[in-house]
Amino acid sequence: MHVLIVGAAGMIGRKLAARLADDGALGERPLSRLTLADAVAAPAALAPAVPACEAVVADLAEPGVAERLVASRPDVVFHLAAVVSGEAEADFEKGYRVNLDGNRRLLEAIRALAGYRPRLVFSSSIAVFGAPLPDVVGDGDLLAPLTSYGTQKAIAELLLNDYSRRGCVDGVGIRLPTITVRPGAPNLAASGFFSSIVREPLNGLETRLPVPDTVTHWHASPRAAVGFLLHAATLDTALLGERRCLTMPGVAVTVAGQIEALRRVAGDAAVRLIRREPDEAIARIVAGWPRAFDARRARRLGFRAEADFDEIVRVYVEDDLPGHAAGSPAVA
Amino acid sequence: MHVLIVGAAGMIGRKLAARLADDGALGERPLSRLTLADAVAAPAALAPAVPACEAVVADLAEPGVAERLVASRPDVVFHLAAVVSGEAEADFEKGYRVNLDGNRRLLEAIRALAGYRPRLVFSSSIAVFGAPLPDVVGDGDLLAPLTSYGTQKAIAELLLNDYSRRGCVDGVGIRLPTITVRPGAPNLAASGFFSSIVREPLNGLETRLPVPDTVTHWHASPRAAVGFLLHAATLDTALLGERRCLTMPGVAVTVAGQIEALRRVAGDAAVRLIRREPDEAIARIVAGWPRAFDARRARRLGFRAEADFDEIVRVYVEDDLPGHAAGSPAVA
Repeated sequence: MHVLIVGAAGMIGRKLAARLADDGALGERPLSRLTLADAVAAPAALAPAVPACEAVVADLAEPGVAERLVASRPDVVFHLAAVVSGEAEADFEKGYRVNLDGNRRLLEAIRALAGYRPRLVFSSSIAVFGAPLPDVVGDGDLLAPLTSYGTQKAIAELLLNDYSRRGCVDGVGIRLPTITVRPGAPNLAASGFFSSIVREPLNGLETRLPVPDTVTHWHASPRAAVGFLLHAATLDTALLGERRCLTMPGVAVTVAGQIEALRRVAGDAAVRLIRREPDEAIARIVAGWPRAFDARRARRLGFRAEADFDEIVRVYVEDDLPGHAAGSPAVA
Repeated sequence: MHVLIVGAAGMIGRKLAARLADDGALGERPLSRLTLADAVAAPAALAPAVPACEAVVADLAEPGVAERLVASRPDVVFHLAAVVSGEAEADFEKGYRVNLDGNRRLLEAIRALAGYRPRLVFSSSIAVFGAPLPDVVGDGDLLAPLTSYGTQKAIAELLLNDYSRRGCVDGVGIRLPTITVRPGAPNLAASGFFSSIVREPLNGLETRLPVPDTVTHWHASPRAAVGFLLHAATLDTALLGERRCLTMPGVAVTVAGQIEALRRVAGDAAVRLIRREPDEAIARIVAGWPRAFDARRARRLGFRAEADFDEIVRVYVEDDLPGHAAGSPAVA
């Protein structure tokens, strides 16, 4: 089968491509071709167990690009490309151009090909929900985004439902939790500390915690995110009915719970690298975020996240900790 | 003040224009200019109490049209133009072109004018909601449309919220109930009988009832719809918060209740003109529609519908029954 990943140079896109290349298959069907597309950077070259693997720099928001990408009729399309939340808020036009127009161009390019109805897996976001939020947000709660990014994702969900209902595409939209532990250098996102307070100490580095220990958030590992995408690509979509978009499972945990998990995996020395430096601006932003989700629907359909935050820490150690050989015991 | 009505040749648009022309004002501010725009037909000429009234044929979905319409910076824009439900389902491209692109072109044309932030009143629809529906649908229920029309209206609501939040426009979206009694000839809409079973007998004509008497539906008169639009145009939008779109109040009544209201207003002779002719196809469509809405939020904000279906019948008699002089007693 032929798989296309749009947004293949991003953190999740790279991990998904590597996993597909390792497996040489998607579900039970062997991969014959893998196309990696990204607007900003050439996706990393892979040495895959795939007969044909190609990397293309392509911006879905440009006229004609979507048509070119789907002309060879890939069986499965993963659409992960997006301008992220902060940038979509800062640059109104870019956010709508990429996150709304890019999306629609892809759907229209698919619709234009007679008899073509690929599985389209779309990465949505919990940003489609907005205040006033219940304590636990369900799949059936109102789409009431409070950002342009959330608006664009909510519109993309509505389009995915309608194009699927009309038989143009076989869509599944998955709303990802915050992905923790993100590998690599700390970034400036307001949510960055959720990863940093685990990753930096595991790398022997100091890190700062800007919010109280009592803050609860919703997490899944990068490995779980790749698992969600693969499951969405092979799921029997007849089970979804008219609602093609699902909130993914995750682990709801307080910052204190994250720190105790770090202690159990890496010991007291690691925890001592966390400095408490309250930052009211970040605390205020985080206070407006949803804390937990009811992902019963996704769980019933077989989507699986980690059981607890200890497992999320161990996944980082196994998959991304520099110098740590896969399969060796945890650091502590 | 300058008022622009887009979609001014439709049933509600004509009544809104006539009301504004009669009043010579919107709320407490006198009208200095009234622009009536419509894509399909020149809006009816009015002899209004307005210094400047112009009618233009203009299709919002065409490039440049929205820019032309807002160049003179109308203070209030009523956006009523839409491809209706059945047509948006039959003609996918036309529905998206008018109901999504037309909408976005209008928002973008407004955003392009620095310092311009008009009140934009948008007519949305209860079609933004979809199965599985609770018995009573609240403002906070999921936007889960089951038609392309409902999808386009839901997207327009999300855009109206985001453009309002960003300060580009001061938007209010109102989800209208089924408008009963529609004046004029019977139409082919599946919902047409809700009006016909009242209007035809009042005009001395036979009519057929295709569904059981027990079917419940949600109604407001054309006069109430005009009242909603005017109230939305003058409302303090600070009271809306981030959620700019509201389900309008209406009257939930069974078909049996409609018939008894007709009897009270027009007597047994009128009721005898209703022939029961069950039509399973129509009954099945109607069974999928929501039956009642919780419009508490709109009521708290001062939106007013009729108190009962008797009043809806009397409004038709007063406003639209041919040969009936306004202000004279009801026909029975």
